[in-house]
Amino acid sequence: MESFFSEKRLKKGQFLLREGEISKYGAFVAKGCLRSYTIDNKGKEHILQFAPEDWWIGNITSARTNTASAYFIDAIEDSELLIIDGPSFETSMQKVPAFAAGFRAGIERHAAAKDQRIIAALSSSAEERYINFLQKYPTIAQRVPQHMLASYLGISPETLSRVRKQMSKRK
Amino acid sequence: MESFFSEKRLKKGQFLLREGEISKYGAFVAKGCLRSYTIDNKGKEHILQFAPEDWWIGNITSARTNTASAYFIDAIEDSELLIIDGPSFETSMQKVPAFAAGFRAGIERHAAAKDQRIIAALSSSAEERYINFLQKYPTIAQRVPQHMLASYLGISPETLSRVRKQMSKRK
Repeated sequence: MESFFSEKRLKKGQFLLREGEISKYGAFVAKGCLRSYTIDNKGKEHILQFAPEDWWIGNITSARTNTASAYFIDAIEDSELLIIDGPSFETSMQKVPAFAAGFRAGIERHAAAKDQRIIAALSSSAEERYINFLQKYPTIAQRVPQHMLASYLGISPETLSRVRKQMSKRK
Repeated sequence: MESFFSEKRLKKGQFLLREGEISKYGAFVAKGCLRSYTIDNKGKEHILQFAPEDWWIGNITSARTNTASAYFIDAIEDSELLIIDGPSFETSMQKVPAFAAGFRAGIERHAAAKDQRIIAALSSSAEERYINFLQKYPTIAQRVPQHMLASYLGISPETLSRVRKQMSKRK
């Protein structure tokens, strides 16, 4: 497998992919943490995903269909990545069945997590979403800045701060 | 391919899968329309997906991991399905590479659509979400009951009704 990948380092704040660019690489995070996000027409950021160690991040749609990415991907910590380009990815899928199966399973898990997030965004309170995130991704919750966590949860930093205070009082 | 599938008819209101059951079948909708949804602890429905003709619907996570489904799937019109069980699905993926490639592309498109829906739920107004849905799924918007559409969009039926009135005045 190693021959398909190459190493890449990103300093905190550097981009793997910008909105409008065509994605060339998928990335496996060996160290650090990346995020994907969009910026709306009012200039507000909306975070789609955090990717700490052992997670994948990229824009498969952009790479596969050769179209402009709808979102940015950047490093929120100094990070070390293993990156793979589209043709190498296809070759590895064909030559290494275990990789193809693992990738498919991963995509399916991701899709299920997205379903849950949609349901949560539609139906849960700010506090419920925060508690749910703490339970599901405890290590991510500890390391990402609070304003990014608020953006991911779709609430204001002020609301997140209020929820956290209320929770700590109850302990 | 046909040997892997069997036919199934559902009357409006009949279930393909109930919350808590383990999914045995994925379904391709040949005629009619299905939906997947959860019911929250206040008894409110939240619609995850509509599946009219030519769409797939199922719960891959439940089938693959042999765990209870977190959502219901039922028919909102009299429907005709082609269903496939887990083992047949795996066999077909291995024996028919074009099917495997098509399925993977479909899953990726779905994942991208889910990303967009998450962003929309986090950042768009009720009216923006409704207009977006009309543009993206015009035929679905025309055939599903308004209260289900409101549930999918995460807004109240009253809000949807108000948005529709405002839009028709502007025309």
